[in-house]
Amino acid sequence: MRVEIWSDIACPWCYIGKARFEKGLAAFAHREEIEVVHRSFELDPGRAKGDIAPVLDLLAKKYGRTLEEARAMEAHVASNAHSEGLDYRTEGRDGGNTFDIHRLLHLAKERGRQNELLDLAYRANFAEERSVFDAETLVRLAVEAGLDEAEARAVLADGTAYADAVRADEREAAELGANGVPFFVLDRRYGISGGQPAEVFTQALEQAWQGRTVLQPVGGGDAAAPACDADGTCEV
Amino acid sequence: MRVEIWSDIACPWCYIGKARFEKGLAAFAHREEIEVVHRSFELDPGRAKGDIAPVLDLLAKKYGRTLEEARAMEAHVASNAHSEGLDYRTEGRDGGNTFDIHRLLHLAKERGRQNELLDLAYRANFAEERSVFDAETLVRLAVEAGLDEAEARAVLADGTAYADAVRADEREAAELGANGVPFFVLDRRYGISGGQPAEVFTQALEQAWQGRTVLQPVGGGDAAAPACDADGTCEV
Repeated sequence: MRVEIWSDIACPWCYIGKARFEKGLAAFAHREEIEVVHRSFELDPGRAKGDIAPVLDLLAKKYGRTLEEARAMEAHVASNAHSEGLDYRTEGRDGGNTFDIHRLLHLAKERGRQNELLDLAYRANFAEERSVFDAETLVRLAVEAGLDEAEARAVLADGTAYADAVRADEREAAELGANGVPFFVLDRRYGISGGQPAEVFTQALEQAWQGRTVLQPVGGGDAAAPACDADGTCEV
Repeated sequence: MRVEIWSDIACPWCYIGKARFEKGLAAFAHREEIEVVHRSFELDPGRAKGDIAPVLDLLAKKYGRTLEEARAMEAHVASNAHSEGLDYRTEGRDGGNTFDIHRLLHLAKERGRQNELLDLAYRANFAEERSVFDAETLVRLAVEAGLDEAEARAVLADGTAYADAVRADEREAAELGANGVPFFVLDRRYGISGGQPAEVFTQALEQAWQGRTVLQPVGGGDAAAPACDADGTCEV
């Protein structure tokens, strides 16, 4: 069974939701048969590449609050992160455009290193004093995730590399009706939204597992179209 | 959208069905957005690895027919193949265990060469004087498909390599209710069986495309679980 998770590195509920999903997955009997794929979603796609600002300032501005109130909002999110055993710093974090990191995550997907890079990027952004809006940091994260340094540099230097893949993910999110992230899609059949508790994810996996073998007929073709049967006989 | 096709190299309707599906896919407007994956299915999984015999003898025995009648059955299948522009030889073809070629197809999948190897293997088996039950032939097909020779040899020499992947595919086919092949599954949601006409595949793709964005809620969680919205605001 396949789980696709639309998320953004800049989204704290994606960081927390990933941990909750993984806890829910760990409690699911058929966890070994679940393939997890990251899909791209940008919270702030219109933001210019070099336009980086402190998250507290951005929050205060967006919600029309004081810096102190923005700090309290961050503290609330941090307490949720801490409950999941995740570090979370409420000061000194930047916000910016995440397109490049999504492009790099698509390279990592092709190299079988997507989950490694995703975890490192979340950690860098939310728990460490490392900016994911800095190209050198991204290169180091890519190398830590097991990617080839020259290849990572080449992708970052060429803004068109994997750009279509990011846009395709975002188009699909819109088509699937995802109004926010994290957004979880199970076998392109079931949807679940937000940083739900771990047990909700376990239950979602169990329901999807039950339903996964029920296929609907399609195409209106002849049910007796020629085939070779499981006993080795072929229609002639 | 993802199409998984369960098939066996030894299955003539899979060879013909693949051509018909591809014709149907070529007529489908969103063909560029379709990912096709081969899944393993063995028509004769109980057959010992070295037990190779002429297909005409096998057919005559299985159906209790004379060799002449077996030849007529093959001629009928051949005429269907010819209608799809496929070569098909009705004499001198062998039958045997296809487990090794399925293992090799899983290596090819990991290397992004699965469709190439699949086409070459079908062609070798049905149209050329090359036996897919011979390890050296399989190595040559793998190299023609763009795989590394040493890697292909290593997989063929180690009977456990990708064996679990083949078994997992076969288990899934059984779970999905596939009683024969070719068996087509669209987004793990819609099923279509047999070597249907090309236009049935086109229609199946169109129906599945229409339905692909309709997700069912699952998990019974809180619809308002914390998330970051598409406008960049995060619940706090």
